[in-house]
Amino acid sequence: MRHETMRLRGDRLALIDQRQLPEKTEYFIAATYRDVEFAIREMVVRGAPAIGAAAAYGIYLAAREFQALPREQFEQQFDTAVARLARARPTAVNLVWAVERMRKVAVKCSGGPGQLVSALQEEAAAIAREDLQCNRAMARHGNNLVPAGANILTHCNTGSLATVGWGTALGVIREAHQAGKGIHVFADETRPRLQGARLTAFELVEEGIPATLVIDSVAATLLRDRRIDLVLVGADRIAANGDTANKIGTYMLSELAMRFEVPFYVVAPLSTIDLAIAHGGQIEIEERSPEELTCIGGHRVAPRGVNVYNPAFDMTPAANITGIVTEAGVLAPPYERAIAELREENYD
Amino acid sequence: MRHETMRLRGDRLALIDQRQLPEKTEYFIAATYRDVEFAIREMVVRGAPAIGAAAAYGIYLAAREFQALPREQFEQQFDTAVARLARARPTAVNLVWAVERMRKVAVKCSGGPGQLVSALQEEAAAIAREDLQCNRAMARHGNNLVPAGANILTHCNTGSLATVGWGTALGVIREAHQAGKGIHVFADETRPRLQGARLTAFELVEEGIPATLVIDSVAATLLRDRRIDLVLVGADRIAANGDTANKIGTYMLSELAMRFEVPFYVVAPLSTIDLAIAHGGQIEIEERSPEELTCIGGHRVAPRGVNVYNPAFDMTPAANITGIVTEAGVLAPPYERAIAELREENYD
Repeated sequence: MRHETMRLRGDRLALIDQRQLPEKTEYFIAATYRDVEFAIREMVVRGAPAIGAAAAYGIYLAAREFQALPREQFEQQFDTAVARLARARPTAVNLVWAVERMRKVAVKCSGGPGQLVSALQEEAAAIAREDLQCNRAMARHGNNLVPAGANILTHCNTGSLATVGWGTALGVIREAHQAGKGIHVFADETRPRLQGARLTAFELVEEGIPATLVIDSVAATLLRDRRIDLVLVGADRIAANGDTANKIGTYMLSELAMRFEVPFYVVAPLSTIDLAIAHGGQIEIEERSPEELTCIGGHRVAPRGVNVYNPAFDMTPAANITGIVTEAGVLAPPYERAIAELREENYD
Repeated sequence: MRHETMRLRGDRLALIDQRQLPEKTEYFIAATYRDVEFAIREMVVRGAPAIGAAAAYGIYLAAREFQALPREQFEQQFDTAVARLARARPTAVNLVWAVERMRKVAVKCSGGPGQLVSALQEEAAAIAREDLQCNRAMARHGNNLVPAGANILTHCNTGSLATVGWGTALGVIREAHQAGKGIHVFADETRPRLQGARLTAFELVEEGIPATLVIDSVAATLLRDRRIDLVLVGADRIAANGDTANKIGTYMLSELAMRFEVPFYVVAPLSTIDLAIAHGGQIEIEERSPEELTCIGGHRVAPRGVNVYNPAFDMTPAANITGIVTEAGVLAPPYERAIAELREENYD
């Protein structure tokens, strides 16, 4: 990608404004943690790994912002910042995971304010760096699953823009393309926010990866007609049993893929797995504003007075998932055991 | 409905401009058959039964327009008009059916130009009147399938606006609501042209029918969670074996409904059945402009240079359809026999 999703410039976090893409390539400059909170909530930055890293930088900005305050006031303000960032959006666990990692650094730090600010900057940079490394590792593992000449269906945006760089599901696609496999991608537009049309198509065109944009419901016809060899999607939160919350429409694709026996893979870093959640039914599904359906580009497309149900995510049961591609390898069912084993190996 | 889909005013056909709804209630005035052809092609008027009736009026306008010409020139112009109107859109068979009915009247008419114009006006009015009668009959038959308090999922627009009045699938919903059954409707927005959001939601709000607007892919979650009791859709062309071409996304809903054993009904007049087509694979599926995906309300939402695949319809196999509601009653599988029997009884 020619454009970076996020970059720290001194005491400012620059975020590519994903609400403006693909028409405009503008940067949103966050000077305070509240700016970062706004950027996450309003989806200036989106994608589970990207909002985790952005929140980490937000906590660094908070520490920097409040470092001159007396200790008690600092702690109060800092705790508020941590809490606000952690709940800026409810479904992606990477957000909570990154915030928690930053909070632990703050708790452990025994030095003065200046040292704390430095430690937090380092930790945020580490989270960002590790995300990129994770994505490259996932891409290598995932690429082994992609046959030469494959037609791949993907949903929402899981590319550079959804992460610090490279991407999860779209990272696998990028890897397979660069490996010269001659793949072709069907990108669905992903209503209501059109991340597929706005962001995934933008990345695919930029990289010269052969691709076709379709509306979400065309997937059924493509899968029936054997025009798709595999489905690759990301994840916002994976329960301990493998149930996966991801962008609304993912579950629909998983049912259709299963119906036509097309492999359906989730690509996500281990930080997306939430061991505190036993199964998908326990994951909170964010509901977003009715305006995402009733207005497009400032135009009203539905009558005033209509009720709207607008869940941002849906739940794909573990039974519909062929494999989960992580930085540590591809997990196969039963996921409960595979996840438990992997976490023991890879985490404290 | 407070608004009429179409009305003949002397030598002008007034069509409610469905491209402007729900924001503006404007009428498109067709003074020539070419205006009607434009209106069908550009979807000023849409919905299989409505475009059939509009084309019939278009043929009347053509006869009126050319009646002063010498006989040979008249016939040439008239034949051109018939041919152009018949192919204004490819998938809905009602268009061909209505045009053919008008052509037969012209062939049989032995009088002068004035008599021909009168005969065609009468036939077009008869087609319009019969459509309304058909819809009322379908609504009565369909209503018997709707349980009290039912949650009904519907797709695209099949209401007053898709017909001369009352509607097909939405006509059944209107009937069930007026019968006091306490129903609730989930209307999906129906990408890419948003007929569900723009038109179905408009009709539902106008009539005070309890309804909720959702994006198309939410259907999977609603069906899984037992929040839908039955699915009602229209049809653009039904093959002799019951395979049904309808708005893109219909097939997806049929697969999900089957997966969760939710009844899935097609509501369509007998004129939608095309006995010349043995099975769905023979039906031509219209592909529409990429701009339907890449631009919304004049805003570009996908990058320049992206490929688009934009089929306007998909094919639902007979095996996925619980029943076909027609003006002559509800057809049950096997449709091949049911259709053959019904056609013998109801058609010349």
